[in-house]
Amino acid sequence: MSHTATAPAAVHDLERDLPYYEPVGNECALFEQAYEQRLPLLLKGPTGCGKTRFVSHMAAKLGRPLFTVSCHDDLTAADLTGRYLLQGGETRWVDGPLTRAVREGGICYLDEVVEARKDVTVVLHPLTDDRRMLPLERTGELLEAPKDFMLVVSYNPGYQHILKSLKPSTRQRFVAMSFDFPPPRVECDIVSRESGLSHERCAALVNLAARLRELKGQDLEEGVSTRLLVYCATLINAGMPILEATRATLVEPLSDDLDVQEGLMEAIQATFG
Amino acid sequence: MSHTATAPAAVHDLERDLPYYEPVGNECALFEQAYEQRLPLLLKGPTGCGKTRFVSHMAAKLGRPLFTVSCHDDLTAADLTGRYLLQGGETRWVDGPLTRAVREGGICYLDEVVEARKDVTVVLHPLTDDRRMLPLERTGELLEAPKDFMLVVSYNPGYQHILKSLKPSTRQRFVAMSFDFPPPRVECDIVSRESGLSHERCAALVNLAARLRELKGQDLEEGVSTRLLVYCATLINAGMPILEATRATLVEPLSDDLDVQEGLMEAIQATFG
Amino acid sequence: MSHTATAPAAVHDLERDLPYYEPVGNECALFEQAYEQRLPLLLKGPTGCGKTRFVSHMAAKLGRPLFTVSCHDDLTAADLTGRYLLQGGETRWVDGPLTRAVREGGICYLDEVVEARKDVTVVLHPLTDDRRMLPLERTGELLEAPKDFMLVVSYNPGYQHILKSLKPSTRQRFVAMSFDFPPPRVECDIVSRESGLSHERCAALVNLAARLRELKGQDLEEGVSTRLLVYCATLINAGMPILEATRATLVEPLSDDLDVQEGLMEAIQATFG
Amino acid sequence: MSHTATAPAAVHDLERDLPYYEPVGNECALFEQAYEQRLPLLLKGPTGCGKTRFVSHMAAKLGRPLFTVSCHDDLTAADLTGRYLLQGGETRWVDGPLTRAVREGGICYLDEVVEARKDVTVVLHPLTDDRRMLPLERTGELLEAPKDFMLVVSYNPGYQHILKSLKPSTRQRFVAMSFDFPPPRVECDIVSRESGLSHERCAALVNLAARLRELKGQDLEEGVSTRLLVYCATLINAGMPILEATRATLVEPLSDDLDVQEGLMEAIQATFG
Amino acid sequence: MSHTATAPAAVHDLERDLPYYEPVGNECALFEQAYEQRLPLLLKGPTGCGKTRFVSHMAAKLGRPLFTVSCHDDLTAADLTGRYLLQGGETRWVDGPLTRAVREGGICYLDEVVEARKDVTVVLHPLTDDRRMLPLERTGELLEAPKDFMLVVSYNPGYQHILKSLKPSTRQRFVAMSFDFPPPRVECDIVSRESGLSHERCAALVNLAARLRELKGQDLEEGVSTRLLVYCATLINAGMPILEATRATLVEPLSDDLDVQEGLMEAIQATFG
Amino acid sequence: MSHTATAPAAVHDLERDLPYYEPVGNECALFEQAYEQRLPLLLKGPTGCGKTRFVSHMAAKLGRPLFTVSCHDDLTAADLTGRYLLQGGETRWVDGPLTRAVREGGICYLDEVVEARKDVTVVLHPLTDDRRMLPLERTGELLEAPKDFMLVVSYNPGYQHILKSLKPSTRQRFVAMSFDFPPPRVECDIVSRESGLSHERCAALVNLAARLRELKGQDLEEGVSTRLLVYCATLINAGMPILEATRATLVEPLSDDLDVQEGLMEAIQATFG
Repeated sequence: MSHTATAPAAVHDLERDLPYYEPVGNECALFEQAYEQRLPLLLKGPTGCGKTRFVSHMAAKLGRPLFTVSCHDDLTAADLTGRYLLQGGETRWVDGPLTRAVREGGICYLDEVVEARKDVTVVLHPLTDDRRMLPLERTGELLEAPKDFMLVVSYNPGYQHILKSLKPSTRQRFVAMSFDFPPPRVECDIVSRESGLSHERCAALVNLAARLRELKGQDLEEGVSTRLLVYCATLINAGMPILEATRATLVEPLSDDLDVQEGLMEAIQATFG
Repeated sequence: MSHTATAPAAVHDLERDLPYYEPVGNECALFEQAYEQRLPLLLKGPTGCGKTRFVSHMAAKLGRPLFTVSCHDDLTAADLTGRYLLQGGETRWVDGPLTRAVREGGICYLDEVVEARKDVTVVLHPLTDDRRMLPLERTGELLEAPKDFMLVVSYNPGYQHILKSLKPSTRQRFVAMSFDFPPPRVECDIVSRESGLSHERCAALVNLAARLRELKGQDLEEGVSTRLLVYCATLINAGMPILEATRATLVEPLSDDLDVQEGLMEAIQATFG
Repeated sequence: MSHTATAPAAVHDLERDLPYYEPVGNECALFEQAYEQRLPLLLKGPTGCGKTRFVSHMAAKLGRPLFTVSCHDDLTAADLTGRYLLQGGETRWVDGPLTRAVREGGICYLDEVVEARKDVTVVLHPLTDDRRMLPLERTGELLEAPKDFMLVVSYNPGYQHILKSLKPSTRQRFVAMSFDFPPPRVECDIVSRESGLSHERCAALVNLAARLRELKGQDLEEGVSTRLLVYCATLINAGMPILEATRATLVEPLSDDLDVQEGLMEAIQATFG
Repeated sequence: MSHTATAPAAVHDLERDLPYYEPVGNECALFEQAYEQRLPLLLKGPTGCGKTRFVSHMAAKLGRPLFTVSCHDDLTAADLTGRYLLQGGETRWVDGPLTRAVREGGICYLDEVVEARKDVTVVLHPLTDDRRMLPLERTGELLEAPKDFMLVVSYNPGYQHILKSLKPSTRQRFVAMSFDFPPPRVECDIVSRESGLSHERCAALVNLAARLRELKGQDLEEGVSTRLLVYCATLINAGMPILEATRATLVEPLSDDLDVQEGLMEAIQATFG
Repeated sequence: MSHTATAPAAVHDLERDLPYYEPVGNECALFEQAYEQRLPLLLKGPTGCGKTRFVSHMAAKLGRPLFTVSCHDDLTAADLTGRYLLQGGETRWVDGPLTRAVREGGICYLDEVVEARKDVTVVLHPLTDDRRMLPLERTGELLEAPKDFMLVVSYNPGYQHILKSLKPSTRQRFVAMSFDFPPPRVECDIVSRESGLSHERCAALVNLAARLRELKGQDLEEGVSTRLLVYCATLINAGMPILEATRATLVEPLSDDLDVQEGLMEAIQATFG
Repeated sequence: MSHTATAPAAVHDLERDLPYYEPVGNECALFEQAYEQRLPLLLKGPTGCGKTRFVSHMAAKLGRPLFTVSCHDDLTAADLTGRYLLQGGETRWVDGPLTRAVREGGICYLDEVVEARKDVTVVLHPLTDDRRMLPLERTGELLEAPKDFMLVVSYNPGYQHILKSLKPSTRQRFVAMSFDFPPPRVECDIVSRESGLSHERCAALVNLAARLRELKGQDLEEGVSTRLLVYCATLINAGMPILEATRATLVEPLSDDLDVQEGLMEAIQATFG
C-alpha cells in the first residue's frame, strides 16, 4: 500500500500559495464547517471532476497536512493504520497514513473508499462517532483524534457496484456532498491556467466537452474529465494539430469502440473542422 | 483488528457522569438482569438508533470496562482472543479485546457480529453456555469468565444477508431484544443535548425524520439515523442555512439517486420552506 | 482454534458429582457399548437439545477427561492435532485437543463436525477404522489410541447443507444415534433444576415450548431449545414479568420477522395471558 | 497432513500373520502382476468394501511397508513429498509418505485420490511413466524408484464429482480394477471373524445388507458397508438387542431422513421381527 | 514477478543503433510530445502488432532506459515498487521495475496492464496526475518522478474482458493511441529485415496475412501477428517447404479447430499452391 | 513444484543410445529447425500419444539436457525460475527448472502448460520474443538465453477448457504442431518393443485400439493411449489372460460407466473371443 503525504510547509516552499481551486457552490463552507464541528465528510462525484484537487486546496487553506490514499480491492485496515516492518534484522513500527493523520492532526483522504476491503470499517467506525478514537492493537496504543484531524472519503456513484457499496451503517456516519464537472466559465479558467493555452481556445474545448458529456450513459461509461481537457490543451499549446490532440485525449481514452470513436470525432470535427 | 476499550475510571475523569442515554422501554432492566444472571445478550436494530450508546451507558452504570469491536468480513477468532506479536526480536502475547474483558471482568461488545468470520463461533460457544470458559490454546490457558464478565453482540436485521446470518445454534445462546429509533420526545431531547440546538428547532427535525423514515424500503435502504439528526442540528446551530444542512446530512448520505434526493428535498421544503 | 478440556478430577472438585443428565432412551447404554467396543460415535440432533451435556455426563461417568471442539469453516487438521508455536524465540510443539485425548486416553468431542474443513478427514479416518492410529507427521510420532480413547462427533441434520455434509466414506465409520428434545417430564425437571423456578411454573413453560416447536419448518428455522427455556425460567425466577422474559428468550432469539414474532407472542399470551 | 506407515516387521510382531483378506476374483493376481511389472494401480469401488484392507493384505504378502494417505481438498504435493520443518531453531527435512515409500521401496496408497489438489499430478506423472522418478526440488534430490516401490490409488466412482475427477492424462497412467462388496459367503466369513458373532447370525445380517443395498440410488447415497455390518455384529455379540444395534449401525449412519429410516427399519423388522 | 530492463548504453553496445521500428502514422510525434509534456501514455492494439517494439525504439531514441513488465493475474503493486528480500540472513530492499524507472529517470512499460491486480492502481494514480509521485511506504521514501520518467501502458481491446477492464478513473489519466498491423509495404520491410527472406517472397506472405486477418472474429480470436510472419519467413529462409512452414506458423498457432485449420490451409494453397 | 532433469551424459550411461522414438511425419525436422532458429515450440495432441517421448528423443538427439515440468493449477512463475530456500538457518537460492535450462543451455519442456497459473506468462514472454531473456528479480540477474536453450510447451486441445486456454498473445509466440496417435505399423513397433510381446499379437491390440478410439467423443472422453497398449501387452506377455489384461488396461482406466465398459468389452471379445 502506498499513500502520499504533503506537509503544508513543504507545499508552501514549493508553491508559495494554495493549490488552485475554483469553487462552484458552497463546498468550501461545508468543508470548513465539517472540519470545525469535527464531522467526517463524504464526497460523491464522477472521475476527474476535481475532488482530489478540492481536498488539496482545503487542506492547504486550513493549514493541515494531507494524507491521500487511493483505495483498491486489496487495501486492508493495516495499510491505513500501519504495521511492523522487518528491516536489517529489527522490527520497526511504521505508521500508516491514517495513523499519521491522527497523530499529527491532519486530513486523511480515502479516494474511492468503496473499493477498500471490509476490515477498513473497523477502523473508520470508532473514528467517525463521538469517540473519535483510533485504537492500534499491535502497538497497544489508543489514539484520540485531535481537534484538527479530519476524515474525508470519496466515491463515484456513477459506477454500478453490485458487490461493492458503502454499508448504510458506514454512510450514515458522514456529512455528504455531490460534485459535478465545474460550470463552463470555471472549467475554462482551470484548463487555461493548467495548460497555458489561451482562454479563447480553451472555451472551444470546454464547449466541446459539454457536448461529449451528453453522450454519457448511451455510448460512454463516463464523460470527458477536466483532466483530459487539460491534457488536450497542453498538447495543442505544444503545437500538436487539434484533431490529433483531441483524438489522443478526448476520444481514445474514452472508448475502444470504433463506432463510438467515430461519433466522437464527428462531434469534434463539427466544432473545429 | 482494532478495538476500543474504555476503562470506567477514565470515563469518570473525562465525563464526571454516565454517558447520556435516554431509556425507551425495559431495556435497562433486561440488560441488568442478563448481567446478574450471567446470560449473554443480543441487540437487534437499525443503524444509528443508539445500540452502541446504550451499551456504553450500561457499562458505565454497572461500573465495568467496555471493549467494543466492530466486526467485519475478515475478523477472526484470533482478533478477539489475542496473538503473539513480534516486537524488537521478541515475541510477546497480546490479549485481544475479548480476552481482556474476560481477564478484567468487563463487558465485551461485538457490533454487527454476523459480519465476523465463522471461527469466531468456536470462541463464543464455550463462553455462552454453562461453562463460561475462554480457552487460549496458544498460551495454554483456560480462562474461566468471572461473574462480572458479560458478552453483548448486535446486528441489524434490516439488511438482507443471504450468505451471512447467525446460525440458530449460536442465536439460541443469547437473550435478545429489539431496538428501534427512540420516540419523538426522547429523540428530541437527545438531538438537542448533543447539538446545542434549541428543543423547538430539534422538534421540527425529529418530525421531519419521522416522515423520511416512512420512505424506508421503498426508496431508501435505511431510515435517517438519530446520529444524522445530530449532525444536521449541529450544522444548523453553527449557522448553516437549514436547506444546506439538511441536504448535507439527511439527503446526500442516504441516497445517490437524483429522483430519491429530489423527493427527500421536497419533504424537507414542505417542512421548512 | 480453541477447545475446552475438563479433567475428570477437576470436575469432581468443582461439582462433587456427575454433570446432571436425564436419560431419555437407550443413549447411555449405546454410548457405553461404543466406548467398550472402541467404536466411534455420531450424535445427530437439533440445537440445544442436550448433546453437549450428554457427552459431558458420559465422560464424567466413565471417568475420562473430555476435549470439546466447536467446529467451524476454518477449522483444520492442525487445529485438532497440534502445531509448533513460536514462544520467546523457541519453537515448542503444542498438542491439539485430539492429540491430547489420544495421549491421555480421553474422549474427544467434535461438535458440528460438518463445519470443519476437509483435511480433518485425513485425521479421522485412521482413528476410526481398525488401525485406531493418529499419525503426527510433524513430530514424527505415530500414536496408537489407547483403549480408553473415544471419538464422538455431532451435527444437526435439520440444517440444509448444500455444500457441507459428511461424506458417506466418513459417516460409515461411526455408530450413530439421533437426539431430540427431551419428553415434557424430563425437560421440566431439567429446566427447574437449572433455573431454580418451581416445577409447576416450569411445566407451563415446557407446554408452551411444545406448541412453539410445532411451528418449526413453517416460520422458524429451529424450535425453542431447552437452553432457552432455562434462560426464560431464570429471568422469571429473578422477578422479571413473564411476558417480558418470554419475549427476550423465546421470541427475539428465534426470529427477526415481526409477523412471526407476533404469532409467537399470541401463543404465549394464550398460555399465560 | 498425516499418513500412516506400517513397517512389515512391526506388522509381524503385532499380528504374526497377514491382515485377513478374503479374495473375490483375480484381484490378488492382478496386484502382484502390476507390482512385478512396476505398473501403478488404480482401485475403484464403493465406501467400506475392503479396498484399504486389500492393500494392507497385499503389502504384507509382498513383504513391503505400506504408506497410506487419505486424500482431501487441501492435500498438496508437499504433503506427499515432504518439507523442511522448523524445530528447536533448526530446520530439518522430513520426508512425506510418498518419498518414504520411494526411498524404502514400499507401497504408497493414496485413498480417494480425486480429492487431492491438482499439484499432486506433477508428482504422480514422472512416477507413473517409464521414468519412475521422484524429483525433490527442495532437497536437490532426484530419486529413482526402486523395483519394489509401487503406487496404488483409489477412488469411489459412485460419487458425482462435477468439479473433481481424475484427468484422462492421469487415469491413463494406471492399470485399473473395480471393487464391489464381497459375495455373501465371503462377507459372512469376514463379519463373523471380525466381530466374534456366530456364522449363522452373521448370515442373517449379510442377507439383510443385500436387501438394504438394493435401495442405493433411490433413497441412499451409498449401500451398507461391510464395516458397518462388523459394527452391528460387534454390538449384538456384546449383548445389545438386535433392533437397537441395527438402528445404530445400519440405519442412523446411512440417512437423516425419517421416511428413509422408517423404510430401513421395516426391512430390518421383516428380517428379525 | 520478473521484468526486463535494458540500459541504453548496453543497447548501444549490442546493437550500435536504434531497435528497428518503421513508423506508420504520427505515433513517434505523439510519444515524444507525451514524454516532453510528462503525460502518461496508453497504447491499444492487437497481439504482435509491434507495440513492444515501438516502445523499445522510442526509449532508445530518447536515450532512456526501458523497464518492461508483462502484467498478469497475480501481479501486485509490490511487484512494481519493490520489496524487502531475505538474503543470507539479512533483509535487503530491492527496487521493483517501476521504482527503478522513477529513480533513474527511465520509461516503465506495463504490457497488458488490465491483467494486473487492482492494488496497482494505488501506485499508478499519484504517478499519473500533477503530483507525479511514487510513495514507498515500506522504505519511508516519497519519490518525485524526474522529468525524464515516463509511464507507458498497453492493452488489447480485442479481448472480451467481462471482469477485467481499466476503470474510467484510471483510463482518464492517460493520453491514448490505437495500434494496428502495419500497412503492407511497411510490414513487408519488417518481415524481410528480421528473417533474411527476400522482399518478393515476403510480399506474398504479407498478402496472405491480409487475407487470413479478414477471418478474425468469425473463426479466429485474433489475426496473424507480424511476429508469426517473421517466424514463417525465417523457416522458409532456412529451407523448409512453404506449406510446412505456413502450417507450423500461420495455422497451428491460431486455431485447434480442424475445420478452421483446413480453411486456413485452403487460403494458403490458393496463394502458394 | 517438482521437475525432472535428465542430463544427456546420464542418459547415455543408462541407455547407450537415444530414447526410442518412431517418427510419423516431419516432426523431427520441424523441431530441429525451431531449435536452430531459436524459436519456441508448441506441441498439441491427445494424452499418451508420445509427446513427452518425442521431446526426450529430440533432446538426446540434439545432445541437450532436458528439464520437464508437468504443469498444474497451482504452478507459479517461482516454481519455474527458483526461490530462496531456508536450509540449516541459511537461505540459499535454488534455480528452478526453467532457470537451469537457460543457464546450462538445455531444453525446458512445460507439459500441459494451460494448467499453469497466469504469472507464468510474465516469464515466458521475454523468453519467447527477440529478447530471449530471463530476468530473475530476486537474485538481481538478467539471464540471456544461450543459443542452445529451447522452450517447448504442450497441451491437449481435446479438453474443453472454458476457463483455461492459452491467450492469443502467448500462443502467437510459438511455432506449433499437432500430434496424434501413431499410424498402426509404427504403433505396433512401439508396443512390441516396449512390452516384449510378439509383433503379431501386438498388431491385434493396435487394431483393437483403432476401433476403441472411434468411440471417443460419444462415450469416452479420450481414446486409448499408446501407453495403455504397452501396459496391456506387458501383462499379456507376463502370462495374464487376454480378457483380464484388456479389462484392466483398456476398459477400467477409460470409464467408470458400466454400459460403456460393457460396450468396450464386447468390442474386445469380438476381436479376441
